[in-house]
Amino acid sequence: MLTFEDYEEGTHERFGHYIVTRDEALEFASKYDPQPFHLDDDAASANPIFGKLAASGLHTAAIAMRLLVDHDAVAGTGRLGSPGLEELSWLKPVYPGDELSLEVEVIGKSAPKSRPDIGFVKMRMILFNQDNEPVPRQIATFIQPRAVSS
Amino acid sequence: MLTFEDYEEGTHERFGHYIVTRDEALEFASKYDPQPFHLDDDAASANPIFGKLAASGLHTAAIAMRLLVDHDAVAGTGRLGSPGLEELSWLKPVYPGDELSLEVEVIGKSAPKSRPDIGFVKMRMILFNQDNEPVPRQIATFIQPRAVSS
Repeated sequence: MLTFEDYEEGTHERFGHYIVTRDEALEFASKYDPQPFHLDDDAASANPIFGKLAASGLHTAAIAMRLLVDHDAVAGTGRLGSPGLEELSWLKPVYPGDELSLEVEVIGKSAPKSRPDIGFVKMRMILFNQDNEPVPRQIATFIQPRAVSS
Repeated sequence: MLTFEDYEEGTHERFGHYIVTRDEALEFASKYDPQPFHLDDDAASANPIFGKLAASGLHTAAIAMRLLVDHDAVAGTGRLGSPGLEELSWLKPVYPGDELSLEVEVIGKSAPKSRPDIGFVKMRMILFNQDNEPVPRQIATFIQPRAVSS
């Protein structure tokens, strides 16, 4: 399993393939973000930002997470959790039918003196659509196990 | 409908009541964040951060959004979208059975010169659990319509 020590600043990868269906966009929005432009075509076309029915921004962040977790088995990652995000920018809307892939880059690391068992790895995560446009971009910190010193 | 002009820096409100069930936590995690500590009791109890099965952090952010949108009808809010979050901090885990309410505070406003029809309202949103502990905290910017000048 990858530990904190295995992460190197500057390394980046792109992976994953996720197609957002209209049904899934409507299901997420109806549960968690039932604003009219996420649920109704007429309200969405009247909205000056979206122009047509778009997925909830939190849904797109959740899709990025899913692509990351699906990649964990390939990468051998054993993430322990996350203290949070420093940024989550919705650069462009995600529309039903969009095909998404994820780029991740290690942009920082820190090891707390008080906890010799864990380290923090900061990653920039950008979800791209089929036109290679960045849609949500986030900077997330993940908690990784440290190698056991013996 | 509330416009950009109606928001005043420093105003805050607390509202909503949301109980996270185990089924809902498992359903969200299995779709978007299938890490072992969100899906399996044994894996969660072995995790040094969670100790027991916890909801996905993105799920808790989505619940905060749901409480905000449910409150829109009461408040008369007509939000147009959001460029994103500056912060999303997972301060404490949210566990199945937790009862959540949301506090929102207006912490900033800006009106772009190039777009006389919209304004940006920055809000600090904190979800509290039944022990009045902040769980996720986020700083979000929302796009609000400007009053039509005549």
